[in-house]
Amino acid sequence: MGSIRLANESDVQAIYDLIKELAIFEKAEFELQNTPEQLLIDGFKENPIYYCIVAEENQTLVGMSFLYVRYSTWKGRVLYLEDLVVKESFRNKGIGTQLMKETIEFAKLNGFNRIQWQVLDWNVDAIRFYQKFNAQFDEEWTNVHLNLV
Amino acid sequence: MGSIRLANESDVQAIYDLIKELAIFEKAEFELQNTPEQLLIDGFKENPIYYCIVAEENQTLVGMSFLYVRYSTWKGRVLYLEDLVVKESFRNKGIGTQLMKETIEFAKLNGFNRIQWQVLDWNVDAIRFYQKFNAQFDEEWTNVHLNLV
Repeated sequence: MGSIRLANESDVQAIYDLIKELAIFEKAEFELQNTPEQLLIDGFKENPIYYCIVAEENQTLVGMSFLYVRYSTWKGRVLYLEDLVVKESFRNKGIGTQLMKETIEFAKLNGFNRIQWQVLDWNVDAIRFYQKFNAQFDEEWTNVHLNLV
Repeated sequence: MGSIRLANESDVQAIYDLIKELAIFEKAEFELQNTPEQLLIDGFKENPIYYCIVAEENQTLVGMSFLYVRYSTWKGRVLYLEDLVVKESFRNKGIGTQLMKETIEFAKLNGFNRIQWQVLDWNVDAIRFYQKFNAQFDEEWTNVHLNLV
């Protein structure tokens, strides 16, 4: 049986590998500019920017919920779920559900009233998964970005 | 002639009024749960969560760019533009353009490689405005949220 726990410094390479696996699945590997070194600084040194809940099976990380705090002018502090990912060969075993439940627990314990995230409109498995949790879909917003370099 | 500057504590009520004006414009006033008191704590006390660039005309705030730092697993730290708003009666005078240019300047000065934001798919004026800055629109993502209370 696996376990669900908060990530620590020694998980950084495995976290990076999961990020990379998800980027490939999302057909966006070329977008990945982050590094294990940067993830270590950003998550596990002074003033961590993100939190990570991980799923472990036989001492291997097989999934994670990658979280950070956002600021909504309407809602104040909200917990943002940047990535929820389970390694392909470990899917359909309930690990994603466990991670999502633990994420909701984490949010409540830390005084958040809302979790926000995004889903790709063609990722029907993910959409169905989130519907099970009664998540609300806000379809009228479009993402925009501006590269400065 | 107006000025563009970083917000300070005494701007909190005016910032709140702009947030409220935008919420009404976006047909979502009922979503506004934040308060001036909370904005003061979150932006101007220890470890501020957000930054705000404001446009002032005759000692009145007429627009703002409301910013905070997000964490992308692919890009690392990115600057997120939560709200860009100009009071209705002061639009079409170039104030939005000034605020956007100052936001880009702020991002570069603080070492960000990317600014991200969102736009409502029916807000054609905003979409046209952002196109002038060569912003990229990523239409395949859908926003999702889960209310915990």
